[in-house]
Amino acid sequence: MRVSQLLNPTLREVPAEAEIISHQLMLRAGLIRKSAAGVYTYLPLGLRVLKKIEAIVRQEMDSKGGQEVLMPIMQPAELWQESGRWDVYGEEMFRLKDRHQREFCLGPTHEEIITDLIRGEIRSYKQLPILLYQIQNKYRDERRPRFGLMRGREFIMKDLYSFDRDEAGLDVSYQKMYDAYCRIFSRCGLAYRPVEADAGAIGGTGGTHEFMVLADSGENSVVYCPDCNYAANVEKAECRPQPVEAKAEKGERQLVHTPKVKTIDEASDFLKIPATSFIKSLLYQGDDKLFLVLVRGDREANEIKINNALGGFISLQLASPETVKKLLGCAPGSVGPVEVPPSLLVIADQEVSLMEYAVCGANKDDYHLVGINLKTELRIDQIHDLRTIVPGEACPNCRASLKEARGIEVGQVFKLGTKYSKALGATFLDENGVEKPCVMGCYGVGVSRTMASAIEQNYDESGIIWPIPIAPYHCILVPVSTKDTQVVEAAEKLYQELQSLGVEVILDDRDERAGVKFKDADLVGYPLRITIGSKTLANGQVELKERKGGDTRLVSLNDTAGQVKAIIEKGMSF
Amino acid sequence: MRVSQLLNPTLREVPAEAEIISHQLMLRAGLIRKSAAGVYTYLPLGLRVLKKIEAIVRQEMDSKGGQEVLMPIMQPAELWQESGRWDVYGEEMFRLKDRHQREFCLGPTHEEIITDLIRGEIRSYKQLPILLYQIQNKYRDERRPRFGLMRGREFIMKDLYSFDRDEAGLDVSYQKMYDAYCRIFSRCGLAYRPVEADAGAIGGTGGTHEFMVLADSGENSVVYCPDCNYAANVEKAECRPQPVEAKAEKGERQLVHTPKVKTIDEASDFLKIPATSFIKSLLYQGDDKLFLVLVRGDREANEIKINNALGGFISLQLASPETVKKLLGCAPGSVGPVEVPPSLLVIADQEVSLMEYAVCGANKDDYHLVGINLKTELRIDQIHDLRTIVPGEACPNCRASLKEARGIEVGQVFKLGTKYSKALGATFLDENGVEKPCVMGCYGVGVSRTMASAIEQNYDESGIIWPIPIAPYHCILVPVSTKDTQVVEAAEKLYQELQSLGVEVILDDRDERAGVKFKDADLVGYPLRITIGSKTLANGQVELKERKGGDTRLVSLNDTAGQVKAIIEKGMSF
Repeated sequence: MRVSQLLNPTLREVPAEAEIISHQLMLRAGLIRKSAAGVYTYLPLGLRVLKKIEAIVRQEMDSKGGQEVLMPIMQPAELWQESGRWDVYGEEMFRLKDRHQREFCLGPTHEEIITDLIRGEIRSYKQLPILLYQIQNKYRDERRPRFGLMRGREFIMKDLYSFDRDEAGLDVSYQKMYDAYCRIFSRCGLAYRPVEADAGAIGGTGGTHEFMVLADSGENSVVYCPDCNYAANVEKAECRPQPVEAKAEKGERQLVHTPKVKTIDEASDFLKIPATSFIKSLLYQGDDKLFLVLVRGDREANEIKINNALGGFISLQLASPETVKKLLGCAPGSVGPVEVPPSLLVIADQEVSLMEYAVCGANKDDYHLVGINLKTELRIDQIHDLRTIVPGEACPNCRASLKEARGIEVGQVFKLGTKYSKALGATFLDENGVEKPCVMGCYGVGVSRTMASAIEQNYDESGIIWPIPIAPYHCILVPVSTKDTQVVEAAEKLYQELQSLGVEVILDDRDERAGVKFKDADLVGYPLRITIGSKTLANGQVELKERKGGDTRLVSLNDTAGQVKAIIEKGMSF
Repeated sequence: MRVSQLLNPTLREVPAEAEIISHQLMLRAGLIRKSAAGVYTYLPLGLRVLKKIEAIVRQEMDSKGGQEVLMPIMQPAELWQESGRWDVYGEEMFRLKDRHQREFCLGPTHEEIITDLIRGEIRSYKQLPILLYQIQNKYRDERRPRFGLMRGREFIMKDLYSFDRDEAGLDVSYQKMYDAYCRIFSRCGLAYRPVEADAGAIGGTGGTHEFMVLADSGENSVVYCPDCNYAANVEKAECRPQPVEAKAEKGERQLVHTPKVKTIDEASDFLKIPATSFIKSLLYQGDDKLFLVLVRGDREANEIKINNALGGFISLQLASPETVKKLLGCAPGSVGPVEVPPSLLVIADQEVSLMEYAVCGANKDDYHLVGINLKTELRIDQIHDLRTIVPGEACPNCRASLKEARGIEVGQVFKLGTKYSKALGATFLDENGVEKPCVMGCYGVGVSRTMASAIEQNYDESGIIWPIPIAPYHCILVPVSTKDTQVVEAAEKLYQELQSLGVEVILDDRDERAGVKFKDADLVGYPLRITIGSKTLANGQVELKERKGGDTRLVSLNDTAGQVKAIIEKGMSF
């Protein structure tokens, strides 16, 4: 490819609309253009990157026995009504009607479609397991689409669905996909981590892992163990009760006036009692049910764990100040667990259950109770892990000190179980002729998001630094002058030679200053740049620069193609 | 691939929903399944065919300098309002609103999106020509989606858009695409014809050709010349006035009572005057304008030509009987051109203008006028080519006798001109710094429809007969018994050997009767079948059968792979 013939409109300025670096650089490097909020056109170089990621994903899916299919984007409402998701999916689903007023959605996911397909085609245990996947547009009507491809409304996903005879089969399929995902992100040249995650809204009973590309700009917080393999989304990471240096002393219950004290930190200062001796009491509303959540004063309550502990509400939030006032007679900041109404469920984090004496709100504005004896003065109905982990805590596997990282979720593997196969009747006859629901898993890779996250992880002030396996071209060839016929001829010859070796090379044949060409090359982020100038060429040499690290050296013209090929092969190996 | 591991649910019965052969066979051969009316899932073998067609299309687009991009399916209404098409596109466009009530459509085509892109990126004549294409889902809300992939509501198209400096540049781009399309359909192994066509609703001023895959089931009628290259859609084919054997004799005008005569044929019988001496008079309504169309009694009026002759109405149809009665005082069957109101436009086909005396309706129910002198008794305001050609007429190029064929439209190349670039302001500065609108062309291939039309052209009573270049696999290997270890081992060995030669081979390793395997192989339509049975194997032979033609022969086991490879290479060559 010649740059003069390529639609690659680079920008020197950072577009005002772009907040994050991948969005800025994809616009500046001429990889994408916006067509509407959260809706993009992929320009030629952007599409090349996308197709390379797709090709890697496809190979890894095929190697695990995945069969590629292509399902519709337009999905009939009837199937979603059958699964029960039509009414609960909410505003994130794009919906439309055809000319006969029949309802459809633009698929945000394809469990319904694939389960409908399978129930029509699978009869016997002999046909299982079966793994079907597609690579296709998905739709999500984000309230605030932004961040470019990181959070679009139209985006590209690979989704695979596994159908097995039983949980043991699902475990095998799940492990296959877990392994495939590790290979995919490794082959893309990305630093990533699979982390234990929460099952969230897709439903299902089994485990799930998220695959996080590590980047400081990541929206997800991850804890991981430097000594063993443990890693988890902070939302999900299991907590062990951690020791407290100074326990609250035994004492008598006292009602203490604590005026203008709003937070536990302020109360701790005011009372000269460490926050670890406080109980943080939070009145929650899950759908239409109220309950009290207790965590230690220095901890954060984890709403995902709270919701999981109580079986899953559709909506879960802190009760409104009005509701708190009505039930407990005080503002939210003064809520406490002592002498609450007998009908109010009280659930406590496991650390709370280990306390003996504590300070807590008094259910009276501007008052705290000090010296509460937990054994005799509190009712705790259930004990769970209800708090969010903190970096530095002990690994639940090996007790090493956990570290924290930021990550971008680019993939998720998920044990669905029989939720959809039961709802839609996707059953098979087992060896004994007994009808059973297929046991399902689903496995997604955000293809366009992987492209964006690769940039979040690989850039500098000059532009993108593509990992070799997903670079739009491996190598750019820059003749410094288009007037010097020797330079032009050498460039043309090397261009042909590189192509004949299978190197993906692009020739910057534009009549532009060298500085412009260098800036564009750095911005687009080709892994290798070969510069041909008259001076070095007189010595039979060209300059070879690696975008990553910036290593620059003079190379004999005759050796260049071979060296380039070797660097690329090394970069592609895995 | 092994059949035992493939999702390929074949059906013995013809599904009731499928009217045409390609739809029947795609369902029966397990290539597609319906998800909703006009909305399909491609199963693994169907997707393989689709991807082969896509790969051929992509190669040919790239070879002409086309750059692949990927535009959104979801398109904002604003762009369609700018081009003026939002309100006129009608019910065939799927429309939806996002959560903020902003309007979108699901793209039926991408002129607006691409012109919006180009107006943002192209500044100078130096950047032109530019050819951009994509392969992607398109949407059309058909009133009666049916015929499987032949007329779906969600379907796959390749669409390329060319942007040139001037008409001469457009001519070059158009010819490139014309040539590429010829290569595409030839490479797919299809019998096709490019035909002159009508510009239709896309608008634009220039020429257009449709690419027709020839098949008896085709919805389009095509005339072509056996001696020269002329071919055209009958809707479009230019007509020359054809001689008439017996001219109407000179006479006096007579009002003749023709009771119960409804058609020209009946009137011809009744009056003993040939239909060629009649004038067929039709009152048309174009939008809100009425006009009278005259063609010779033996001819069919051509509404596309009528509409083009008068500059293009949005709606054109025969006037209702009520309108006819009100204006001319008779039923539609008695309409005639004599003494019509002076304000009524009368347009005549060129053959009518060559008549001297004629018979016509009398604008009085059950009466005809005989012996009308066209020169003195008729007012004709405009003369055009307004009739539909008939096979057997003279070729407009070379006067040979035209033949007729049925075709399925699988592609169209189209000179758009400046309609969209003017509407959206996609301009560039020419050599003299003058701002000009880009001159555009658009070029579509129905990818999924090409797949269906390949079947309409290539099948027999046993199933599909895939052309080698687009077959899901080239060759199926059928061990007659899965119990005979020698047979199984020979099959496995040949399977490996064929794969190592790059032959796309599928092994039917199912524990099924040979008859079942043969039926499935014929139904799916693999071009080659190798059967390994114990008897022939004892002689070191296998049976090689070509699906097309049914040629069956015994081949030495050792020579088989080589022969298969040779047949496939021949079939792929072009």
